[in-house]
Amino acid sequence: MNGAGNLMDFLDEPFPDVATYEDFHTIDWLREKSRDTDRHRKITSKSKESLWELIKSLLDAWSGWVVMLLIGLLSGSLAGVIDLAVDWMTDLKEGVCLSAFWYSHEQCCWTSNQTTFADRDKCPEWKKWAELMTGSAEGAGAYVLNYFLYTLWALFFSFLAVSLVRVFAPYACGSGIPEIKTILSGFIIRGYLGKWTLLIKTVTLVLAVSSGLSLGKEGPLVHVACCCGNLFCSLFSKYSKNEGKRREVLSAAAAAGVSVAFGAPIGGVLFSLEEVSYYFPLKTLWRSFFAALVAAFTLRSINPFGNSRLVLFYVEYHTPWYMAELLPFILLGVFGGLWGALFIRANIAWCRRRKTTLLGKYPVIEVLVVTGLTALLAYPNPYTRRSTSQLISELFNDCGALESSQLCDYINSNNTTRPVDDIPDRPAGPGVYAALWQLTLALAFKILITIFTFGMKIPSGLFIPSMAVGAIAGRIVGIAVEQMAYHHHDWIIFRSWCRPGADCVTPGLYAMVGAAACLGGVTRMTVSLVVIMFELTGGLEYIVPLMAAAVTSKWVADAFGKEGIYESHIQLNGYPYLDVRDEFTHRTLAADVMRPRRSDPPLAVLTQDSTTVEDVEALIKDTDYNGFPVVVSRESERLIGFVQRRDLTLAIKSARQKQDGVVSSSVVYFTEDAPLLPASNPQPLKLRRILNLSPFTVTDHTPMETVVDIFRKLGLRQCLVTRSGRLLGIITKKDVLRHMAQMMNQDPESIMFN
Amino acid sequence: MNGAGNLMDFLDEPFPDVATYEDFHTIDWLREKSRDTDRHRKITSKSKESLWELIKSLLDAWSGWVVMLLIGLLSGSLAGVIDLAVDWMTDLKEGVCLSAFWYSHEQCCWTSNQTTFADRDKCPEWKKWAELMTGSAEGAGAYVLNYFLYTLWALFFSFLAVSLVRVFAPYACGSGIPEIKTILSGFIIRGYLGKWTLLIKTVTLVLAVSSGLSLGKEGPLVHVACCCGNLFCSLFSKYSKNEGKRREVLSAAAAAGVSVAFGAPIGGVLFSLEEVSYYFPLKTLWRSFFAALVAAFTLRSINPFGNSRLVLFYVEYHTPWYMAELLPFILLGVFGGLWGALFIRANIAWCRRRKTTLLGKYPVIEVLVVTGLTALLAYPNPYTRRSTSQLISELFNDCGALESSQLCDYINSNNTTRPVDDIPDRPAGPGVYAALWQLTLALAFKILITIFTFGMKIPSGLFIPSMAVGAIAGRIVGIAVEQMAYHHHDWIIFRSWCRPGADCVTPGLYAMVGAAACLGGVTRMTVSLVVIMFELTGGLEYIVPLMAAAVTSKWVADAFGKEGIYESHIQLNGYPYLDVRDEFTHRTLAADVMRPRRSDPPLAVLTQDSTTVEDVEALIKDTDYNGFPVVVSRESERLIGFVQRRDLTLAIKSARQKQDGVVSSSVVYFTEDAPLLPASNPQPLKLRRILNLSPFTVTDHTPMETVVDIFRKLGLRQCLVTRSGRLLGIITKKDVLRHMAQMMNQDPESIMFN
Repeated sequence: MNGAGNLMDFLDEPFPDVATYEDFHTIDWLREKSRDTDRHRKITSKSKESLWELIKSLLDAWSGWVVMLLIGLLSGSLAGVIDLAVDWMTDLKEGVCLSAFWYSHEQCCWTSNQTTFADRDKCPEWKKWAELMTGSAEGAGAYVLNYFLYTLWALFFSFLAVSLVRVFAPYACGSGIPEIKTILSGFIIRGYLGKWTLLIKTVTLVLAVSSGLSLGKEGPLVHVACCCGNLFCSLFSKYSKNEGKRREVLSAAAAAGVSVAFGAPIGGVLFSLEEVSYYFPLKTLWRSFFAALVAAFTLRSINPFGNSRLVLFYVEYHTPWYMAELLPFILLGVFGGLWGALFIRANIAWCRRRKTTLLGKYPVIEVLVVTGLTALLAYPNPYTRRSTSQLISELFNDCGALESSQLCDYINSNNTTRPVDDIPDRPAGPGVYAALWQLTLALAFKILITIFTFGMKIPSGLFIPSMAVGAIAGRIVGIAVEQMAYHHHDWIIFRSWCRPGADCVTPGLYAMVGAAACLGGVTRMTVSLVVIMFELTGGLEYIVPLMAAAVTSKWVADAFGKEGIYESHIQLNGYPYLDVRDEFTHRTLAADVMRPRRSDPPLAVLTQDSTTVEDVEALIKDTDYNGFPVVVSRESERLIGFVQRRDLTLAIKSARQKQDGVVSSSVVYFTEDAPLLPASNPQPLKLRRILNLSPFTVTDHTPMETVVDIFRKLGLRQCLVTRSGRLLGIITKKDVLRHMAQMMNQDPESIMFN
Repeated sequence: MNGAGNLMDFLDEPFPDVATYEDFHTIDWLREKSRDTDRHRKITSKSKESLWELIKSLLDAWSGWVVMLLIGLLSGSLAGVIDLAVDWMTDLKEGVCLSAFWYSHEQCCWTSNQTTFADRDKCPEWKKWAELMTGSAEGAGAYVLNYFLYTLWALFFSFLAVSLVRVFAPYACGSGIPEIKTILSGFIIRGYLGKWTLLIKTVTLVLAVSSGLSLGKEGPLVHVACCCGNLFCSLFSKYSKNEGKRREVLSAAAAAGVSVAFGAPIGGVLFSLEEVSYYFPLKTLWRSFFAALVAAFTLRSINPFGNSRLVLFYVEYHTPWYMAELLPFILLGVFGGLWGALFIRANIAWCRRRKTTLLGKYPVIEVLVVTGLTALLAYPNPYTRRSTSQLISELFNDCGALESSQLCDYINSNNTTRPVDDIPDRPAGPGVYAALWQLTLALAFKILITIFTFGMKIPSGLFIPSMAVGAIAGRIVGIAVEQMAYHHHDWIIFRSWCRPGADCVTPGLYAMVGAAACLGGVTRMTVSLVVIMFELTGGLEYIVPLMAAAVTSKWVADAFGKEGIYESHIQLNGYPYLDVRDEFTHRTLAADVMRPRRSDPPLAVLTQDSTTVEDVEALIKDTDYNGFPVVVSRESERLIGFVQRRDLTLAIKSARQKQDGVVSSSVVYFTEDAPLLPASNPQPLKLRRILNLSPFTVTDHTPMETVVDIFRKLGLRQCLVTRSGRLLGIITKKDVLRHMAQMMNQDPESIMFN
């Protein structure tokens, strides 16, 4: 009995240093939550004992805010560094700054004194490669040399990126958002948010974006921010030892990631809430907001865009929009929805092919081929040669007096073209017509190449390419409407709001609406999308156009398939993700889903007082279940509790080593008292301490929709099925997901993990 | 058997036209949800039968959006009408427009041709009462007469308001937000959102606000919008017959209400999400946003503020803020927190006194006394005489060249006072010093009178008075900092950012920060508060000051008590509201909370095949439980299901009327088959159809924190407690709430409803 008593003490804190979940397994939210409450209770009761304990309890209470602050600071700084490095390396493909090679084109010419504002991107210090190497800046030879070096740099960057990812951190590829969604829903992927991933993803993200591929840094920044969150979790045992609490921090980190990606803190919080997070208590909302703000302001103080603005694409429009313009906006929404549906189908088909064919075996070659193609096709067109975010920024801009863009080449009242004065009513000049053609080509190119780029083994975000597609389409439509209004002031649709001489149409706004529509079509974000766009413009005025386009785009895209790109990739990878948005409307019952099925062998159970250590060990060896129900006896099958496989293994192992008299024929007792046996007999092994006495049960008549709801809302790992108190079977999260897949006529075997 | 067969058919659709829940009872969310899924399944399967059914199913799918559109239109229109009426009636207290008596002061002088911009509020058509009645506009006599008439009008308006509320719709009083929170959490208060309440609340809200009492229209507008939501629910059986779906609509309506109250659609959605709603699926998020936008744009097209702006207080600041200013902002946060804590304590104490003493018996006299006092004290001070929202608007404003306010009476470079030219650096003129005194008096007055005003039997919102308190305090602090910076440019704290001649301090910003802090202290809103404020200014720049003040205010206020004003009022009224924010950290088990307690009589249960009709009727008569567990037999106590009292009563009643052979001694069968008896014996009554075969169960060892979590997340009404399949007891929502109150050392009897 003494030995058993010791074991009791030992089991009081059951195996604290062993990670509780295995890799690629699902966590039990309820259990995590109750463990945290226990911890909290312990600290609160201890805090009354001494001043030191009180201070410790206060530190514990504030640690959440400290983690948020650190996440904000680090992710803001990383975003700033990434922005600066991308700027520099993107320009490095074209030339170099002689006064200081680490300056980007823009910085180089800022510091030069010889430039006027109009020629602000031309200065003697900035040399194109051809000029530097051959001395001549013009001519076909120089063009070809620049073209060649541009492609070479691009190939070099992307080769470096894909090699680093392959060698050091395979998890650093892709946008990371599907995996983060899965992790936040309660799945374990060890190393996905580790230090190596953080480091390599940051470096390779810079390389990938600089290589000119059709990808963005916004999605990967969310991954980077989540890695920061995970890193700082390890500083506090409150977060590092509790998978549930850790996920609260990660949700906030995701918000900080979007906040620095777009300079939109509120949009970031809503993105985390709407798109990424699973369990989002109000406390997390508030902390996310704090992290997002700190991140945004850290970024602002680094000031990578050189304009003291928080936002990536700062725009200011001077004219309102008119009701009649809703028609083109809705058309842009339809376009965005169609693009979203097309993109998801094509990209998933291509990614499936990559997974199943030889293609997947040669990721480096794939990346090099795509980069080469991108560089070769992109260079001749000025709109694809520059970085995608510069392109979007130019497309969003309204034409002002100081704008030197080709898109602003309007004929002004003096019949000279540029600089445009502020006279609003204007026919397009030759530059605008040239730009229209180039933009159409750029649109076709972006649409095609993005399908093949997203999903390659390098960090790649989807926000920027999607927005670029929409912005190009939007600007084209915008210019078309503008010119129509100029030339046909007398048409009924224009007469009421667009008199001659009035500035009625802002093509930049169309670009923004188009960008929102395309992004919405691909990701199916709704409120957060509109809020991000709203933060970019800072004006409530344009919410209705954005909203109209976003709704239309979602409806159109939903008609072709309910899943957004992230959900599609989750499905493709077979992660056990229980989407809160899927409504389960079938008429099945728990009895139809539970295992064992009719033809299966009976459920593997333990009895409370008649199983021997040997039996238990055999059961553990023969099965791979995560846990076993414990019943009164095999005859009555009345459920008394549930025991985790892991706890059972460890308890038996340690009892065999440390407890006298526990041998293979010892009986395992889950009851409150074990019989007193003479010392000569094998001593009983008392395991009530590891028995979960409150396992979750439903009856066999419970409709599956209720079961799905319970799994979702309580974050269960498994649930036992009973009828009149008799144990009938068990339903795991995997069973639920497989059943849902089956009901939707999908392959249930696509759900691969526990 | 034939009779039993008929009964089966009859029970297939159990009592469709009877309201399922009684007044002041809690709904069962899981049941509502599964009823909706059933309905949805039925429509989907029918839709394949004919074109008409297909159209019906499409209409059903779109009805949600139609309801949102209607809510947006109606609540936007109502808000516009209320705004216009309040403007007119507020001015009516002072005078009348001769050219058209239905014009407010501002409208009257707009239409007048004789006014210049500087004298825009003086025009011959607008006559004060004294001028109209005696002919003289100046002098002590005229002042006293105006004073007297102002008070008289105020008394008349408030008397009308309180009488209308008392006679026609007692639920129209107060802000309505505590009750709406309770209703949304799944409680039934019939008539609270009815047509009469809508009508009377709209009318009396205008009267109450116009009477000059220290109350706002923002909270009641949420109630009005929810009434609109409830009204349109009755158009669609999908919403009118399902209490769960109805609450989705009401959540969206609450968002629309805040949207029109402040002109802040995003803030409205977040307010609904953070503060009001309980069950907020993503679908609702999206629809709320739609409703909020429609409402905002309906309001804008009515254009009650005459400035084409959506927002109540439109401001534009021209200078950024500086780090050193964070100190006064945080001090304002501390002030806001203290004010919040003080207000809640004092107001709750006063409301409790109203409930328990004679005071509550004479609401009309109370309202008249408070109105009289308010009018008498408010009239002499120009800052309290005008409407509170005009006051806030003036305090928020930055002083520009055209500003005629006394607050902008700075001495400009020519040593003349007003009009101020745009030279930024300025010492305060005598007007500003006079204003400071008046503002201090106004602050003291507002703080005191609001405590006694909120909770009276008239519609009364708290947002505007709280914001006014904060705005006054903020403006005072702002002017102080500004003058300090002007006179002491050389002080260390100013030297780095405020050189002579530079415009460094914007007192209007301080007013806004103060308003946010005070509103946050009272309501404990966080993210939604900052977003609402952000939408008012439209600039991300000022988020950090607002956020710093809001966080400080929340922390300071939380130190004095966790509950905001709405939760305090819910507690005061004893509503069964299970706050998602309260964390339950005690170590109790389900066994400690369940009934029957040890000393109680055993649980009232039915057996599956041995209870007679007579027994059941006796049980129904003797107890008032909402339902009864059904067990296999009294000996084994194994649970097979749960039957609702209401269903049982109706089933027995109809069986006695319609079914031959069912008499008092008939045995009630809940089993699948009943024995075949000779016709001479009393025929069995088969009631399996009304038996819920999947009642929610937990074991007696389940920690209460898990039980609380389950009740919250699944919205249960009751939960059965078992041990090894044996039924031990039952836990209802009321039991949970009482236990929580007990654990927090509160009176468990304060929870009054089921």
